[in-house]
Order: sequence, then C-alpha cells, then structure tokens
Amino acid sequence: MTTITSLETADIRFPTSLSLDGSDAMNPDPDYSAAYVVIRTDAGDGLEGHAFAFTIGRGNDVQVAAIDALRPHLEGLELEPLLDDMGATWRLLAHDSQLRWLGPEKGVMHMAIGAALNALWDLKAKRAGMPLWQVLSRMSPEQIADLVDYRYLSDALTRDEAIKILRAAEPGRAAREAELLRHGYPGYTTSPGWLGYSDEKLERLCREAVADGFAQIKLKVGTSLEDDIRRLAIARRTVGPDFPIAIDANQRWGVTEAVRWIGALAEFDLAWVEEPTSPDDILGHAAIAKAIAPIPVATGEHVHNRVMFKQFLQADALQVMQIDATRVGGVSENIAHLLLAAKFGVRVCPHAGGVGLCEAVQHLSMFDFVAVSGSMEGRMIEFVDHLHKHFVVPTVITDGRYVTPTAPGAGTEMHAASIEQYRWHATGPVA
Amino acid sequence: MTTITSLETADIRFPTSLSLDGSDAMNPDPDYSAAYVVIRTDAGDGLEGHAFAFTIGRGNDVQVAAIDALRPHLEGLELEPLLDDMGATWRLLAHDSQLRWLGPEKGVMHMAIGAALNALWDLKAKRAGMPLWQVLSRMSPEQIADLVDYRYLSDALTRDEAIKILRAAEPGRAAREAELLRHGYPGYTTSPGWLGYSDEKLERLCREAVADGFAQIKLKVGTSLEDDIRRLAIARRTVGPDFPIAIDANQRWGVTEAVRWIGALAEFDLAWVEEPTSPDDILGHAAIAKAIAPIPVATGEHVHNRVMFKQFLQADALQVMQIDATRVGGVSENIAHLLLAAKFGVRVCPHAGGVGLCEAVQHLSMFDFVAVSGSMEGRMIEFVDHLHKHFVVPTVITDGRYVTPTAPGAGTEMHAASIEQYRWHATGPVA
Repeated sequence: MTTITSLETADIRFPTSLSLDGSDAMNPDPDYSAAYVVIRTDAGDGLEGHAFAFTIGRGNDVQVAAIDALRPHLEGLELEPLLDDMGATWRLLAHDSQLRWLGPEKGVMHMAIGAALNALWDLKAKRAGMPLWQVLSRMSPEQIADLVDYRYLSDALTRDEAIKILRAAEPGRAAREAELLRHGYPGYTTSPGWLGYSDEKLERLCREAVADGFAQIKLKVGTSLEDDIRRLAIARRTVGPDFPIAIDANQRWGVTEAVRWIGALAEFDLAWVEEPTSPDDILGHAAIAKAIAPIPVATGEHVHNRVMFKQFLQADALQVMQIDATRVGGVSENIAHLLLAAKFGVRVCPHAGGVGLCEAVQHLSMFDFVAVSGSMEGRMIEFVDHLHKHFVVPTVITDGRYVTPTAPGAGTEMHAASIEQYRWHATGPVA
Repeated sequence: MTTITSLETADIRFPTSLSLDGSDAMNPDPDYSAAYVVIRTDAGDGLEGHAFAFTIGRGNDVQVAAIDALRPHLEGLELEPLLDDMGATWRLLAHDSQLRWLGPEKGVMHMAIGAALNALWDLKAKRAGMPLWQVLSRMSPEQIADLVDYRYLSDALTRDEAIKILRAAEPGRAAREAELLRHGYPGYTTSPGWLGYSDEKLERLCREAVADGFAQIKLKVGTSLEDDIRRLAIARRTVGPDFPIAIDANQRWGVTEAVRWIGALAEFDLAWVEEPTSPDDILGHAAIAKAIAPIPVATGEHVHNRVMFKQFLQADALQVMQIDATRVGGVSENIAHLLLAAKFGVRVCPHAGGVGLCEAVQHLSMFDFVAVSGSMEGRMIEFVDHLHKHFVVPTVITDGRYVTPTAPGAGTEMHAASIEQYRWHATGPVA
C-alpha cells in the first residue's frame, strides 16, 4: 500500500513578453507560465507525478492557490485505488460540491483539478513504465469508456456508444502503434505568425517551416486588416499556392465583423479560421461557420469543458476540434472530447505551444490515433519551438513530425533546475 | 483628487452546513461564504467600498486570492476617473489579457473582477448619497448604455438598441421610482423547500410563506422522484391550487432525464423549472424547454457571462432569467443581462439567498423596473431568510415584498463585528 505524502506547487514564469514571442491580437505580452504541481508518495521508488496548468503570467499565483486548495483532498490518501479507477478519481475532485461552485467545471478551479489529475496520470504512466499515450492505448474499451463522466453528455454520447467507437478501433491497435513509433505524428507550426514579428522575419520563418517539413503554417490575424492582407500575401508568396495556411484571430471579433474580415482574407485560400470570436459563443461560431463555408472553423483552446464541446458539435459550430492539455479537467475530460469528435466525425488538431503544451498534448493525439479515431487524416498537432529544453522529456520534431515519445510518464515533468531558476517572486524578473 | 490607498480582503465563512439550511440535490452541505473586499481611499470622508463574491465554503480562499491579485490594478490609482467611467473601469480589469487567460470571463477570476468592481459601485453610490438602484436609475440612457461591453453581443444587442430600450423607459421613471419607494418589489421564498427539511417543517414553512404574502414558493427537487412527488403533494395541498410553486433541480439531470422527471411532476402545476441541467448546456436547456412547454425554464445563477445569456435568449432556452449579483463581472455585466432580457422580452427573477445576495441583487431589479424594462409583471426576487443581520443595510421584507432600500451604497457592506467573528482560519469553526 502506497500513500500520497505531499502535493507541492510552484509558481513558474518565463519572461517571454520581452521578445514578443507569442504575441497575438488579444494577448500582446504573454509571460508563459506554469502553475506547477508535484505529487509524492511513500513508495520509495523515486517516482513522482508532475503536471501543471498553463497561464500567461499575472494570475499564475491564483492558479497555484487553486491547486493548493486540493491538497486536503489528496494528501494522506492511498494511491493505488486512485490510480486504478481514474474515472472515480475525476469524480472525487470534479464533483466536490463546494469547489464546483467556483466554476462550475470552468476557469481557475477546474484547471487546478485538471493539473492535479494529470499529475496522477503522470505517476500512473511512470509506474507502468510506459508513456501515457501507450498506457491509455492498452486499456480495454470498457476501461477507457469508464474514464468519462457522461453527466450532461448522454444526449450526444452514451457509454455504450463510446464502447462501440473504441471496439471498432481495437483490431488495428497494434499496427497503428507500430506505425506511430516508426513515423511519429504530423505537426504544424505557428512560429512564423506572431504579430510582433517583422515582415522579414515572417518570410524567413515561412521558408524555414516548409523546409522543415511541417504540414501547415498558421498566422495570427485580427488587429489590422491591412496588415493581415500584407502578411498573408507574403506568406502565400513564400510557401507557394498549395501549402496550407491557417489563420488565428484569438477571439478578436464579433460575429458580423468576423464574417466580413474573413471574407476579405478568403483569397489567400485559408486552411482554417481559428477562434474567430468568444470561445463561449457556440451559436456565434455556428453562424460564422455557415457564412464562411467551406473554410473550416477551428476552436477549442479556451473551450472549458465537455458540455461546451458537445454543443459545438451539435450545432456544427466547429470543423476542427482543438483540444488543450491544461484548460480542462485533465486526461479524462480530454478523452470525452476525443470520443465526441469521433462520434461526430470531426478531426482533432490540438492546441499546443505555450510552455509544455506540446509535451503534454501529443500523448492525447497519439492515443486517439491508436485507440479512438484510428486516423491521422487531416490531423496534426500545433508546434511552437519555445521552452522545450526545460522538460525532462522534451518534444522532438523530425521532418515536421512529432517523434513518438517512449519514456515513461505524461511528458509534463520539468527539470528541477528550470523550476528553481524560473520560480516567480513578486520581486523577480517578471514583476 | 482622491487616491485608492488599499484593497483589503477577508475570507468569511458561516457554518451553515450544520443546520442543512441551503441543502439541495447538488450541494448537500454548503457553508455560505463570502470572499470579501474593502476598497479604501485618502478622501478623508470615511467612505469605503465593500463587496464580495459568494461561495459555499471550500475554495473561498482561492476566491480571496483572486481578488488579492487585483490589488496592483487598483491601489494607487486616482479614484474619480474610475468612478466617472465605470464602463472603462470594467475594461481595465476584464480586458487584462493575462488575467483573462484564466477564464476567459468565467470562474474564479471573473467573479473576483466582479467583486472589485462592485466595491467601486458601492463607493460610488455612497459618495452620491444614494442607494445603488437610484444612482443607476438617474443616469442618462447614453451613460447606462456605455457601461456595457458590446464585444460579442452586437449580433443580438447593439449600443443603439440599448439606448432605444432605455429611452423608451425614460418618461415613466419618476412615477415608477415613487411606486417602488411606496410598495417595494415582489419577493418569493425558497425557505420551505430545502432537501434537508422534514415533511412537517416543509408543511409549516409553506403555510407561513403564504401567510407572509410571498408571491411564490420554490422546492428543491432531483434526488428522489418519489420524495419529490410526496413533497410537492404536501406543498400543493398546503398552499392551495392557485398559489405558484416553482421547482429547482440545481443542475442534477441530463436532458432526457430532465424531460422524464419533470413530466412526472407536471401534475403539480409548476410555475417554473430551474436549472434542469448543466448551466453551460444552452442547447440542452432549449431541448428541455421545448419538451416541457408551457412550463417555463428558469436559469442563470451559474451562467457565467453575457455571452452565455445572449445565446440562452437566442436559442429560446430560458423563459425566466435569473441574474446573480456575484457570479459575473459586476454591475456593468448584469446591466448587459437586463438589457438583453428587455430586448428579447424575457422576465428577470434574480437568484438570491446565500449570504448577501438578497441585499445586493435587489438594486438591479429595482433599477430594471425604473429605467430598463419598466415592469414588475411576473417578476420577483428570490428571498431566503438567512444571515441578513450581518449586513449594515439588511434586506427588509414586508408582506412578502422587498422594501426599497434608501440608505446610500450597494447593500454589500457587512458589519465589522460579523467580519471578525466569521473570519475563517484553517483551524476555525468551518475546517
């Protein structure tokens, strides 16, 4: 019997605003940050669960305080029952009525629950000696289906339907796992497209993206239509007529404005339009999607739970689902998203970048390929070349593809030295 | 020139779980709590801005930490420009890109912003020497319209439409203000209906509610259909065939279950069904509303911002809008809700109870009556007889009606002695 002996947190902030990396129409000066959590036990095996919620600076202390509030829920508990039934462990935290009031199932408290649960997933994978994607891919359809909370989902997805989807993918699992280990998973890059970059830098990075073998590039838009047209023209000229270019407005527009603005950019042959408006506006996204068809609408990095994704799919309000590894209630809730996408026949192209999001979310896409959708068709994971060196198992990109990780764990552990160096103090480098 | 000298917070928790007051199908043991904020200045006039976010216990410390995170945004600022343009002050806090990432515009951080803004509203009203409802009711249509953030609203409500609504209500303002001061505003009571009460207590409280002159009673449902039928039969028998009885499921059901359960209770002539499912499930509410018509669906106490309310109205997913004084980004966002309701012709019956919610939200309904909808038709404010004595200007109920407050301020100030007595420490009465 193993007991959880501690849940420790750290407020980690990187001063990324100094270089304008990551600047977009809504987030001019982000300081990529992690509200970081470490779960330790008395097992004596040296294994720890590490995870985090990603934020962009101010308020990371609030996110840390929310994870701290979960300490009494986990410290002193027996570990094995928690890890053996992660569906029940989700309910233990997500259904706590007093904590739930703070959302419900959204915002700071929900992300904190996701971070704590993901630390347990990291520990579970390390104890199994496998990367998280493989742990998940080797569970039975019933075991996977039981990770999902069907409350509020059953009008769109029942447990029986989930099992049917998972069973249909069972025969090809071994072959797809082998393929994944050989060839990795497609990536696309947002690195060229930040608003703070000069035209010269944009052109150079576009050229490099194609040469590096990425499947797509993405440009930030939405601050100035004139600038967007100029920058898209540069990008299109640089990558050629057939290379996919997506755009990302980061919630900048209202519905009418979105339709008009996108219309003015349509000549550049857009692979998708991301976050055209508020992530809460399901009906707004549906109206935009209808108006700009056949250009697909992509969204999800700020979609706060499975109930919202359910409606986006029911309303045909997104054509590309962008799950995020730290926005929601952890791996279990993201599996609900993958199953919903499979049920509605929508492709999943995760949000990544920030700090550690690439490391974390690749496990979900790879699990999806092996055991859920069984497909890489039109699917790719966002890639931004930032801050990877701080992770014990950093993302590796070869020929524009994510190299499938084989190290045990969920990919969410940072180096102790990085944690110490970027630990935030009110008087520190990011004030 | 006046400067904000401090923003102080307090973690206040009342051990209400000990008496099962406030127990419902999702919240079995709430400890009504306030993440409390006081804004002080160097004006030397003795006036302070007081407000709070309401929570139900655990996590109130996280809510306090979120308000603390706003200190650098307000301390040291000149007060008058903030109070003179509360629309701009909303944007100062709600549009901070780094804090916004923690929602966006939802959950702990958004409620914290609401609490800080409401403390400024309290101070503004005290400086004007008027209750908040009157301060708002005497602003021009243009001034009121400029409090609202139309980003993401303009497909349903533009500034011009808001001004048109407000101008239409202008002629009758003085007469309605006089009527309000004479007769108050209708209330309804939830006190009989908590799940933890015995049948005898239920019957006694139903009788008292009618005798006290309330416009409606409300029963909590959703844990056991058998119990619900028995309790509704007792209530209906006690209050007679014509007295309105609403029910509240507190998000307990999925869509299919809700329709079935409500069908089994329809014989009791339900005035409305509240929170039948997840507060995020707009399309689910719409499906339920269609299936149970003509029984109205009521929701809103957990609807986290104006973008969500917009969609509830667009989808005909609610017939009674239940605004909440501390769930959203403060008075300005609630005014957006009132204007949306007026535009779509839906009645507003605020959520109250908890601690201080009656004191706070009555100002919004009264402002709505004087200057927005101009109507009390079918409208009433929830009333629960809990914890009022802790407030400097406590809610007064006469003949089942809220007596219109005339004391300066927003009603959100607690007695210093109550703050001290119920200040929470990890080792205190509510552990």
